[in-house]
Amino acid sequence: MCDKYYMNLALIQAKKALKKNEVPVGAIVVDEKGNIIGKGYNKKEKHKSVCEHAEIIAITKASKKIKSWRLNNCSIYTTLEPCPMCASAIEQSRIKKVYYGTSRKDENNKKIINNILKNIDIQENIYVEECAKLLSDFFKNRR
Amino acid sequence: MCDKYYMNLALIQAKKALKKNEVPVGAIVVDEKGNIIGKGYNKKEKHKSVCEHAEIIAITKASKKIKSWRLNNCSIYTTLEPCPMCASAIEQSRIKKVYYGTSRKDENNKKIINNILKNIDIQENIYVEECAKLLSDFFKNRR
Repeated sequence: MCDKYYMNLALIQAKKALKKNEVPVGAIVVDEKGNIIGKGYNKKEKHKSVCEHAEIIAITKASKKIKSWRLNNCSIYTTLEPCPMCASAIEQSRIKKVYYGTSRKDENNKKIINNILKNIDIQENIYVEECAKLLSDFFKNRR
Repeated sequence: MCDKYYMNLALIQAKKALKKNEVPVGAIVVDEKGNIIGKGYNKKEKHKSVCEHAEIIAITKASKKIKSWRLNNCSIYTTLEPCPMCASAIEQSRIKKVYYGTSRKDENNKKIINNILKNIDIQENIYVEECAKLLSDFFKNRR
């Protein structure tokens, strides 16, 4: 399976968030054989919790599925550059590779997460236009 | 109430983790009136999830209690210097002040969390000996 295939699934998750009027971010955790073991989309407003980011939900589900917090050799696909909370959860769960769609505008975020993820492969800009458009349309409509 | 009062409650939480053979870390969220609105202790092994840190649990409970992810003017007391995941959850939930017991040995952790929490008051070394001893005894017994 190619990276775009999984990022497209993360985009489908992000669109679920959009439908529920949440900031549209989606994430997918994939094991070393290519099986999807965790999916999630942002539910911050629904659950009134900053911890309900797409990546945290996908990681929690993946850990539950394989009955371990160690997600060795797994990859995560997320439509938006992770925040430090999610980057740290990725690093602590020993995920091997991070793929993300669009970057955040905050340069300090990139500096922080690059430090947190310094021993982890990062591939950015997959389906960058689709991921970015979903977010910009959402914020345009909120104004 | 003084800071030691709340840190002692966080220590009581940490001891609950110890009893369940989890790394002994505890946390308490306090609102601006001094009410305890969230408590938590590390449950990483029980729930097999890196997201089950004491601070995340305390923040999630506090948000549920006040029905908002905005914990404006609240403080958090945690027995151990937060990891970047918890520091970012603290920052995103708009907590005003962080009190912690003992520091981590990893200097890079402090650098990262000081960047994440750069606009938030931090008070360290409250009951530092008690918080540190709980952790060092735990790791000594595991060897």
